[in-house]
Amino acid sequence: MTVHPTHPPFGSHRDLLLVGGMPLDRLAARVGSTPFFAYDRGIIDARVAELRQELPNSVRLAYAMKANPMAAVVQHLSRLVDGLDVASAHELHTALDTGINPESISFAGPGKTEAELRQAVAAGVTIELESFREALRVTSISERLGLRARVAIRVNPDFQVKGSGMKMGGGPQQFGVDAECVPDLLAQLRTWDLDFVGFHVFAGSQNLNAEIIAESQRQTLDLLLRLADSSPWPIRYLNIGGGFGIPYSQRARPLDLALVGRNLADLVPVLEARLPQAQLTIELGRYLVGESGIYVTRVIDRKVSRGKTYLVVDGGLHHQLAASGNFGQAIRRNYPLALGNRLTADADEIVSVVGCLCTPLDLLGDNVALPKAEVGDLLVIFQSGAYGLTASPTAFLGHPAPAECLV
Amino acid sequence: MTVHPTHPPFGSHRDLLLVGGMPLDRLAARVGSTPFFAYDRGIIDARVAELRQELPNSVRLAYAMKANPMAAVVQHLSRLVDGLDVASAHELHTALDTGINPESISFAGPGKTEAELRQAVAAGVTIELESFREALRVTSISERLGLRARVAIRVNPDFQVKGSGMKMGGGPQQFGVDAECVPDLLAQLRTWDLDFVGFHVFAGSQNLNAEIIAESQRQTLDLLLRLADSSPWPIRYLNIGGGFGIPYSQRARPLDLALVGRNLADLVPVLEARLPQAQLTIELGRYLVGESGIYVTRVIDRKVSRGKTYLVVDGGLHHQLAASGNFGQAIRRNYPLALGNRLTADADEIVSVVGCLCTPLDLLGDNVALPKAEVGDLLVIFQSGAYGLTASPTAFLGHPAPAECLV
Repeated sequence: MTVHPTHPPFGSHRDLLLVGGMPLDRLAARVGSTPFFAYDRGIIDARVAELRQELPNSVRLAYAMKANPMAAVVQHLSRLVDGLDVASAHELHTALDTGINPESISFAGPGKTEAELRQAVAAGVTIELESFREALRVTSISERLGLRARVAIRVNPDFQVKGSGMKMGGGPQQFGVDAECVPDLLAQLRTWDLDFVGFHVFAGSQNLNAEIIAESQRQTLDLLLRLADSSPWPIRYLNIGGGFGIPYSQRARPLDLALVGRNLADLVPVLEARLPQAQLTIELGRYLVGESGIYVTRVIDRKVSRGKTYLVVDGGLHHQLAASGNFGQAIRRNYPLALGNRLTADADEIVSVVGCLCTPLDLLGDNVALPKAEVGDLLVIFQSGAYGLTASPTAFLGHPAPAECLV
Repeated sequence: MTVHPTHPPFGSHRDLLLVGGMPLDRLAARVGSTPFFAYDRGIIDARVAELRQELPNSVRLAYAMKANPMAAVVQHLSRLVDGLDVASAHELHTALDTGINPESISFAGPGKTEAELRQAVAAGVTIELESFREALRVTSISERLGLRARVAIRVNPDFQVKGSGMKMGGGPQQFGVDAECVPDLLAQLRTWDLDFVGFHVFAGSQNLNAEIIAESQRQTLDLLLRLADSSPWPIRYLNIGGGFGIPYSQRARPLDLALVGRNLADLVPVLEARLPQAQLTIELGRYLVGESGIYVTRVIDRKVSRGKTYLVVDGGLHHQLAASGNFGQAIRRNYPLALGNRLTADADEIVSVVGCLCTPLDLLGDNVALPKAEVGDLLVIFQSGAYGLTASPTAFLGHPAPAECLV
């Protein structure tokens, strides 16, 4: 009986998980300390290749850096995708350091500060306007800097996609400009000297249902074609977001990417006929990097309390908050776990895996079947390539920051 | 109608909140940027004084640094309390830097590493043993360093306290040694050369019900008196934790500290008769600092989307995760909020306060009554002195770290 997950995209050699072809024990020695995050560039490459194969050729891919802003990951992806999306001045710096064309960088976020907007105008990136006030601010900064800012309008759609992990469109929202107010903003933009390039809509995230994504993309393009009629300028940029999910539990099924691709193949000719200059962009974060990453911890203690076995590891929620169920999840579910140095052993023991923090929140695996673990073993949490380290309270209890490596 | 909370311990002058006697606008200018955390030393002093007045004189107070490890706060508290509790090597360093007697520092945590234990033995602090294996490790380190380690046993009690925000005792647990196994561990300790000083029990946290805390303290002391019978050495240290809660919502009522004090006054004479050398310690984190702190943000945008008004501020869940309901809370409730520069104005508008992050999780106040806010106003989140900055994912989306000040 081997019921513990050995996650498909990673290889194995005898008992050992392979990361970028390197056995996990050797990688741990190379890193020099646990815990650490490791990202497998081969898995990232394969994911991009799969997207290029399933989506129409004319669709551009952008990477939403917020999912994993590690500089090496961003550098690597900048050579594979067509654009980068940033959410802060710091992410902007990292994106610019890749050497990518600044126009291929988009900057979104409902609370951009004056200083951030100034940096974005100076950099020449595409600023996604989230409100009338922001549009006015950008105009004023453009005038002061003597630089014509490149802008798109982020649209809060007038529909909502069901089944998303998070809702980010429809109804009242802090994100973007309500669809029905976009013509007014476009009329305003006529009087300001900005380089308006198009629209951005983001209608959901972490969605595993291809039918819903397809329906959302249809509705989004319908909406954008309508809004384009109000534009005094040709539309050159249409970012319809992504929202492609990855499975976190063993019951969840992966997204049917082929279905999404077929749907886009139907939509693209209509779009090209109506808006011949528009470049259609799909923006993905988690889907590009989430499955490439693991969080590696070492078993420090193994203890039995009143009949229940605990593995205490040297990591915890301070590095992988989402795996403890404390970041946006309504219901706590175990992330896929394995003993990275005992892959072929029978999973004949039920244990709880807890982090080193002095809080009961620090639960990484609740009643998980694993091979019998010993102190020193390497406990691996899969699906840790996105919203892992940077979405975690690293300073909590003052433990050292973990290393990160791209292998 | 003024229904917005102007939090009692902070003073006000005209429209302005006072922090340590300084008007908030001047403090913001002194700090130089928003967002920031500010802690009012006068409120901390008053809380300690209140505890000294309500609790028996012989009770020692310890500060659990994990609640707020800012060095200035720890330095300040080290002169007011009798001990510091640390949860990592980094917290240990900060505690030692205060100049407090190392024996008054306790080090707890289920996943202490070999390196951390070595530092703790070298420092001469009280190590709270969480397992047999840890006891063995400490013995071996003691031998190697030629230093007799000072140790206590952390006990997982055989009862559970109802009504705590979190359960940390009773049933199977990763924390401490099951009460029924403590006599075995004490027998082992006879053969090892350690300086055994006593016990630590922590049975809950964030509890607002004084009756339950009193009952828990009775049960804890009963248990510890029983366990003391198995000790070959006199008991000098009894840390019975704390778990004193603070109110986060307007409906929650503050803890009846006087009741807790009267209960302890009944228990202390029994304890002193049975274990004359035992120093009884109450360990508090949140209760000492939580109410002293505010998180100050500035309104960047004010927008209306489909009839709903949003205030977008320059802070967010990356600094104050718990206020967004994403840190250990089952149900999201608004923290108390105010416009720190409009305290006397009528709260005649219902708004949602959102952070600057590009995620719908970044909700700081849902349908809150506030005075009409303008861009530039200072939006204050109260109850932010504990589990604020260090319990938040500061690197998320790459925004700058906020300043902290003790005023």
